[in-house]
Amino acid sequence: METINIIIAGPRGRMGREAVKLVHETEGYRLAAVLDRKHGGINMNEMEGFQGIDAPVYSDPEKCFTEVKAEVLIDLTTPDVGMLHAETALTHGIRPVVGTTGFSIDDLERLERLTKETGLGCIIAPNFAVGAILMMKFSQMAAKYFPDVEIIELHHDQKLDAPSGTAVKTAEMIKSIRQSKQQGHPNEKETIEGARGANFDGMHIHSVRLPGLIAHQQVMFGADGQMLTLRHDSFNRASFMSGVKLAVDTVMRQDRLVYGLENIIE
Amino acid sequence: METINIIIAGPRGRMGREAVKLVHETEGYRLAAVLDRKHGGINMNEMEGFQGIDAPVYSDPEKCFTEVKAEVLIDLTTPDVGMLHAETALTHGIRPVVGTTGFSIDDLERLERLTKETGLGCIIAPNFAVGAILMMKFSQMAAKYFPDVEIIELHHDQKLDAPSGTAVKTAEMIKSIRQSKQQGHPNEKETIEGARGANFDGMHIHSVRLPGLIAHQQVMFGADGQMLTLRHDSFNRASFMSGVKLAVDTVMRQDRLVYGLENIIE
Amino acid sequence: METINIIIAGPRGRMGREAVKLVHETEGYRLAAVLDRKHGGINMNEMEGFQGIDAPVYSDPEKCFTEVKAEVLIDLTTPDVGMLHAETALTHGIRPVVGTTGFSIDDLERLERLTKETGLGCIIAPNFAVGAILMMKFSQMAAKYFPDVEIIELHHDQKLDAPSGTAVKTAEMIKSIRQSKQQGHPNEKETIEGARGANFDGMHIHSVRLPGLIAHQQVMFGADGQMLTLRHDSFNRASFMSGVKLAVDTVMRQDRLVYGLENIIE
Amino acid sequence: METINIIIAGPRGRMGREAVKLVHETEGYRLAAVLDRKHGGINMNEMEGFQGIDAPVYSDPEKCFTEVKAEVLIDLTTPDVGMLHAETALTHGIRPVVGTTGFSIDDLERLERLTKETGLGCIIAPNFAVGAILMMKFSQMAAKYFPDVEIIELHHDQKLDAPSGTAVKTAEMIKSIRQSKQQGHPNEKETIEGARGANFDGMHIHSVRLPGLIAHQQVMFGADGQMLTLRHDSFNRASFMSGVKLAVDTVMRQDRLVYGLENIIE
Repeated sequence: METINIIIAGPRGRMGREAVKLVHETEGYRLAAVLDRKHGGINMNEMEGFQGIDAPVYSDPEKCFTEVKAEVLIDLTTPDVGMLHAETALTHGIRPVVGTTGFSIDDLERLERLTKETGLGCIIAPNFAVGAILMMKFSQMAAKYFPDVEIIELHHDQKLDAPSGTAVKTAEMIKSIRQSKQQGHPNEKETIEGARGANFDGMHIHSVRLPGLIAHQQVMFGADGQMLTLRHDSFNRASFMSGVKLAVDTVMRQDRLVYGLENIIE
Repeated sequence: METINIIIAGPRGRMGREAVKLVHETEGYRLAAVLDRKHGGINMNEMEGFQGIDAPVYSDPEKCFTEVKAEVLIDLTTPDVGMLHAETALTHGIRPVVGTTGFSIDDLERLERLTKETGLGCIIAPNFAVGAILMMKFSQMAAKYFPDVEIIELHHDQKLDAPSGTAVKTAEMIKSIRQSKQQGHPNEKETIEGARGANFDGMHIHSVRLPGLIAHQQVMFGADGQMLTLRHDSFNRASFMSGVKLAVDTVMRQDRLVYGLENIIE
Repeated sequence: METINIIIAGPRGRMGREAVKLVHETEGYRLAAVLDRKHGGINMNEMEGFQGIDAPVYSDPEKCFTEVKAEVLIDLTTPDVGMLHAETALTHGIRPVVGTTGFSIDDLERLERLTKETGLGCIIAPNFAVGAILMMKFSQMAAKYFPDVEIIELHHDQKLDAPSGTAVKTAEMIKSIRQSKQQGHPNEKETIEGARGANFDGMHIHSVRLPGLIAHQQVMFGADGQMLTLRHDSFNRASFMSGVKLAVDTVMRQDRLVYGLENIIE
Repeated sequence: METINIIIAGPRGRMGREAVKLVHETEGYRLAAVLDRKHGGINMNEMEGFQGIDAPVYSDPEKCFTEVKAEVLIDLTTPDVGMLHAETALTHGIRPVVGTTGFSIDDLERLERLTKETGLGCIIAPNFAVGAILMMKFSQMAAKYFPDVEIIELHHDQKLDAPSGTAVKTAEMIKSIRQSKQQGHPNEKETIEGARGANFDGMHIHSVRLPGLIAHQQVMFGADGQMLTLRHDSFNRASFMSGVKLAVDTVMRQDRLVYGLENIIE
């Protein structure tokens, strides 16, 4: 297996730091350079928290992609910067793996055109947690056979919104495949309001918030005499790195744009 | 250990049938007679579903308690009949174990007076599921150290009311011991109404209803860096019998009225 | 949707009784006849436990399949009888759904040839629990991304063998897709023998046996910072009927032999 | 409520750092000094990682306890040092809360004598995780009613020994209260060795090891028709701090030695 030379954009963010660690520690990966708008011109090992990691730092993407030999760009910046980086990388023969949300349809269409012209893969992944993506994908598959489903998502009590984005995404994926269905007894009634949770196309979603918890979700399917439960527990940010690695390895074999890791998971 | 002679009132109900089976199969127990308003005068083995069980059937409690030597009455009838049976039993030196809800304060006071006069134990148990009672009792104990708690109760989708009686009882027991507390982030907001469940004194209760489920409850406590979960699964009615047995064995050592199995569980 | 006329072989077994109930209650299904080696010549409603169900009973399959117009045979007998029934059914233009294990490779090859000649579907399903099959299938898919896996299976304490057949089948399916791997720390040691469970190709399988339990299995995948858990709870035999129904509906669209429901679940 | 002045011994260890943070952030607590064999004479805010925390550092316990006015010593050092600290503290009127294991019977007897003489409380706590202690305590209580129990403990795959110390401690606590009992079917057999786990007095203990996991334990009780499950998840070291706080608050009201937090939890 040949070494993959990788450029990381946004190395100082929380995801970025994990990505630097991943590339540094993975056999077959080499950190070729980083893109950091503040520290261009120095070496990584002069930046706080990156002692012992040797790679040039660039602020200008154009210059970086021209001077550095690399096959893959991992971008963990912001949507607008990420878009610029991805386009520039593709025109320099570098395959982007972009971990930001918020791309517009226009953006995606432009990137798709660029990948077709260059024959290079490009992966945009709003969520790198492979376990969470498997849970969502399996939920969608199971709903075909078990249309009665409830979702419980559990997070720390500093989370402001309920239900979580992942819970809603899961419900949307299930909705896309099952016939709309009001679950529960038609005459059921809540003696305390809210007991039956949020109603999404007849599915019920429950949001638990407790100190100590991190990010957990459980999707439950019930049918005559049986229950199927799919659960994902995310304990810390390291959980995203298996998704980043999967995307890097996959983008090398792709020749087009892929949006969402669920589309490269079989 | 001496044999305990037992009279069962209400042998044809669902609980009654299980109780007959329990007494018949438990070493140290003997079925002395049954009270059944319809079949007085015949033998149990002439009644449908009780082939091979030999015990006289009475319709008149007075007559039954006078003619039959017994130490314990297991009453699984209705509140008004149960009250009459319990009083009559006590005046005949028989200790009642009554498994019905709906007694009035007056009833309980009268029974308490009778137990004091006779020095005989009497147990009224609205819930015989020892596992559920332990879950509630442990929840109350845990809340002293972990005031942040959420309850998830899960039942089949033919259940009409939400939350379940057991969930509300659990929340009440926790409320009695912890300082009132609004849980979750003060600024949390539901993007779909009901996501955060029912609010009971700041605790949140979530009711899941799915075909296939039976009766389940999970009480979750969160604190810095940890979670404590107490769960009870009830798969069928046999689960009540360990509670009936506990009550029978305990009532023999009691000399007063006890209301609720939680008060004889240490 | 046209009515599907169904013959059931083995109506008096536990699965058979559920199947009769299923066919009787499902819209679009009609019970055309039953095959029962003991009661040929009478009507079902003369058999114990089948009051109100009107269908002729045959003992001779040849005679049954000749006289009765049917599209599907549901066979819940024994492997040798099931083989004879399936062959005979196919030659009479009837599609078999066979719920027995123990077919030989020879048997399967003969059936495959017959389905090719007749262009009729035939489904052999050693396991009809759709939820359990989904759990196994998802486990196989997940192992591709998360090679570290442990299986916990939980059953009532009357079960003699450990681990369960489903746990071993799950482990085999995972083995077929992942590179062999010894899990756990290379230097781990058991201070009490057996603590780390059964070792199957480096995966660990744990068998819990407790009174009250029914049939449950949990497959756990761990990776950096996350855990994915797939669980199936089987509460009673009714859980098999969704699989029987799926097989009946699918066999009508098939023109070849299918072995194992996992192959018709997408 | 009066402020409690606290000395912490061993501030640079992992537990010590958490304890400094706890005392610093808890209303009603004041960090009076720290004991650190290396840094005596400077101020905490000169030590790495303690910027902004103002307290004198001592190396000599005698000197520290003489010069500093304090009510409580939190000792997170090693058994031998901890013993010396505890004795010296008691003779200076300071109540010790010691979080180390490995005290000898002799040590405990000497400390008990000292607490009697001085009328001061002293708490030795080998385990500060209140949730884990509740799980063990509840397990012991539940075993009285449900003698059939299995324990599943789950840890990261860097753990060397199986089963975990907490699992064995739980099993010992259950053993102390139930009649010895061989669980499972008398004729059960393992088709793969180890499937039924470790056998401890007839209870079965199963050790799961997976990357990503932290420290989890589940105690399961089964009985006719029901299951009771007690589970503790420890996500990080912060979980110990509620136990430290409980010990500090309790030691102020004690006048004798207490060994094990389970003895101050009601």
